[in-house]
Amino acid sequence: MERQFDAELNALNEKLFHMARLAEESVTLAVKSLKERNEALAQDVFKKEGSVNLLEIEIDELCMKLLALRQPVASDLRFITSAMRIGSDLERVGDLAVNIAGVSIGLIKQPPLKPLIDIPRMASLAQGMIKDSLNAFVNRDEKLARAVCERDDEVDSLNDQIFRELLTYMMNDPSTIDRAVGLILIGRHLERIADHATNIGEDVIYLVLGKTIKHHIEEIRRQAAVNAEAQ
Amino acid sequence: MERQFDAELNALNEKLFHMARLAEESVTLAVKSLKERNEALAQDVFKKEGSVNLLEIEIDELCMKLLALRQPVASDLRFITSAMRIGSDLERVGDLAVNIAGVSIGLIKQPPLKPLIDIPRMASLAQGMIKDSLNAFVNRDEKLARAVCERDDEVDSLNDQIFRELLTYMMNDPSTIDRAVGLILIGRHLERIADHATNIGEDVIYLVLGKTIKHHIEEIRRQAAVNAEAQ
Repeated sequence: MERQFDAELNALNEKLFHMARLAEESVTLAVKSLKERNEALAQDVFKKEGSVNLLEIEIDELCMKLLALRQPVASDLRFITSAMRIGSDLERVGDLAVNIAGVSIGLIKQPPLKPLIDIPRMASLAQGMIKDSLNAFVNRDEKLARAVCERDDEVDSLNDQIFRELLTYMMNDPSTIDRAVGLILIGRHLERIADHATNIGEDVIYLVLGKTIKHHIEEIRRQAAVNAEAQ
Repeated sequence: MERQFDAELNALNEKLFHMARLAEESVTLAVKSLKERNEALAQDVFKKEGSVNLLEIEIDELCMKLLALRQPVASDLRFITSAMRIGSDLERVGDLAVNIAGVSIGLIKQPPLKPLIDIPRMASLAQGMIKDSLNAFVNRDEKLARAVCERDDEVDSLNDQIFRELLTYMMNDPSTIDRAVGLILIGRHLERIADHATNIGEDVIYLVLGKTIKHHIEEIRRQAAVNAEAQ
């Protein structure tokens, strides 16, 4: 029985890894389609979407089965509920890659607005965060998970920089507006991909420590107590 | 024991309702701050954020406790895992309201770009979807849940319309660019709020039917089988 449960947990790990790899590849292809102006690569992202979605459902079904049949407690329970959450984050990453691919197809029909440097850099940061967050999950590596969460700021500030630069482009030359808006949207999609990696990192810390660090919980509870006293 | 479990499930329902109400109010306030050009209302959204986040954590903790101590199966198990997912959707709705409030504060420092009609309409549609999806959850009302999911298309097409209209504004008058981009971002935030309500609707259908309709699963599985055969 015990060994059977271990085998099921391993199957769950494998599905998550597989899903993370597909989601990461989708992000790579979507940004590559933009950089290399290659619509076929964007089409490949659309083709991968079904597999990512199917994996989310398989992960959910496996987790529900494990919860019902194995009735896990403590760290096994946290592992399984985290896996469900991670599946849902990875599904969103796949969706965001599809969004990027969609914008890319529109953009590559027009002349390039500017050489792309920051967007591929953001994409590679975000992908690295996804990869590391999954490694942190499987190895229950709290330190790596924290490092992932810390890298989110870098992605956010790159996105702000891209946004400001593109606003300037539009103001100087209104003929660039729709292309600039497209690139702004891609920057935001990448920022959200990094947010999902951060969510996964937070789940790993919860898994290892048995307590949540989401929303800096202790700070919130302290503040709630202060507010309650003030009333 | 049984009655104690029922009381705990009721407490979970109440927390979800409370959270949904806070999240909805945040959306109302954020859009109102923009429409009435009132920064204090946007500040109120920031104040509510902590409570929304705290409720997500309380809901998660309660669900983990119920999973560990009551070891629910079948429909109770689905109810509890759906509640966790819904908590996370509502937390994202609260975040998106904060994003809208942030953009609003920037926009109301400048002259109005145009009378706001479509954005408040989108907001009220999205809020109605959140409210109905929660009612569907608590009453296990599959029909209402499906109606919520169907309304998502209306929000999407309003958002497309807003986007195209604002692009025209920018092209005709580049001095409107940063305000138009702000409104485009608010449109997208509202669209995502409606997406979260749709996720909740899908969770309700899963809860009632015991099978997922996410990503049109049967269609995906059929396609995967066809692909596998073709290889």
